Amino acid sequence: MLSKAAIRRLRDLREKKNREAAGVFVVEGGKVVAELLAAGALSEVFATRAWLEKNTVPPGVAAVEISAGEMARASHLPTPSDVLATGQMRRPVLRDGDLSRGLTLALDGIQDPGNVGTLLRVADWFGLDRVLLSEDCAGLFSQKVVNASMGSFARVNAFRVPLAAALSADNLPPVIGCDLRGENVRSIGAPADAVIVIGSEGRGISPEVRGRVTRFVTIPRFGGAESLNAAVAAAIVCDRLRNP
Amino acid sequence: MLSKAAIRRLRDLREKKNREAAGVFVVEGGKVVAELLAAGALSEVFATRAWLEKNTVPPGVAAVEISAGEMARASHLPTPSDVLATGQMRRPVLRDGDLSRGLTLALDGIQDPGNVGTLLRVADWFGLDRVLLSEDCAGLFSQKVVNASMGSFARVNAFRVPLAAALSADNLPPVIGCDLRGENVRSIGAPADAVIVIGSEGRGISPEVRGRVTRFVTIPRFGGAESLNAAVAAAIVCDRLRNP
Repeated sequence: MLSKAAIRRLRDLREKKNREAAGVFVVEGGKVVAELLAAGALSEVFATRAWLEKNTVPPGVAAVEISAGEMARASHLPTPSDVLATGQMRRPVLRDGDLSRGLTLALDGIQDPGNVGTLLRVADWFGLDRVLLSEDCAGLFSQKVVNASMGSFARVNAFRVPLAAALSADNLPPVIGCDLRGENVRSIGAPADAVIVIGSEGRGISPEVRGRVTRFVTIPRFGGAESLNAAVAAAIVCDRLRNP
Repeated sequence: MLSKAAIRRLRDLREKKNREAAGVFVVEGGKVVAELLAAGALSEVFATRAWLEKNTVPPGVAAVEISAGEMARASHLPTPSDVLATGQMRRPVLRDGDLSRGLTLALDGIQDPGNVGTLLRVADWFGLDRVLLSEDCAGLFSQKVVNASMGSFARVNAFRVPLAAALSADNLPPVIGCDLRGENVRSIGAPADAVIVIGSEGRGISPEVRGRVTRFVTIPRFGGAESLNAAVAAAIVCDRLRNP
């Protein structure tokens, strides 16, 4: 059984400002909790007896039994599941020279949390070295981002940065922008080191970041759609880079 | 001003069975309405005076002014927008021999409406000739599908079919399944005629449909993610086919 104070604490974490102040993110649902437990990304699990009997919580993670009624009060979702978990936000710091090595995916103004999550999953599939998120991207620690990333959230090195400034560093590898105009993506080659910039579907790459791009590539269009989904575009570029 | 009966009719269209019986779909929001008006896919527009003053409704489409209060009662969304529109469902019939010509994207059990919409947009971008949806895919005419397709819904020839049966037709071109195992997608070549089968992210291609696949391709993985989003996988295959 949970104390009133414990339930109030979980409820308070519904507010982004409280999660930020505590440095804690919240996820709910059996699938994402299992993925993030496996990835070692969680610190507390609040679950019904039924869930606890069927699942193993590794040592070092607090497991607390909670009734369905308590879960309904603590949950952040309209339809509570049988498990809610918390984890510590990790905010690695981008160091000088990091971008000069390996493959970086830079997200410029991707505001839809589902898209950000899917982009993390793409970066994970293709084994990219890191993801940069501009400050106007969806927050990395929202439940929607974490759920859409399908566990990739815990495996990808993601940094929230002032993007144009980060792309002004010395000794950067090619900065490749994905745009409606540019070289055919099939001519991208397979650079070992590169930054791939993906803008939002509506507005494309922002003017400040555009000024840092050294090469534009485009995915040829054969039909009527005005744009491709940002995660779809990023995946096509990554596939060409990794599997030339 | 709308009659009570007119508001009731729009409210009743919240239920899928009523939309199916009337053969009508509903969309809401300025962006999707503008896209579908441009594509000639709508028959009625219910909008606030402010919207009607800023937008042009083409001849042949009924335009009805509606107050914010009426919209709140008619809308299908928790947060109504200033425009709601209806269109006739079109259900083209797949004919013998259709699949033998051109490129077909076949969706097997894609239940998430956002994914189905994004897949329609991918098919539109790459100018595919048609999309088949298995009977357990998300309904083609739900608002979520139409919104996620960003207008591609109105440009793509989409057929809901018993998929395994449809893929048993004579004279089919190669039926290429996208799977976790198979030839490297970069060796896919550029067949002018082909069917590309995409399964659900969780379960992959169903056993019955799998039996109709003549060739499997895979997108090589370099990192930790267990799967790729279905629309992402389809887009990579289409890019390789169209832009070899």
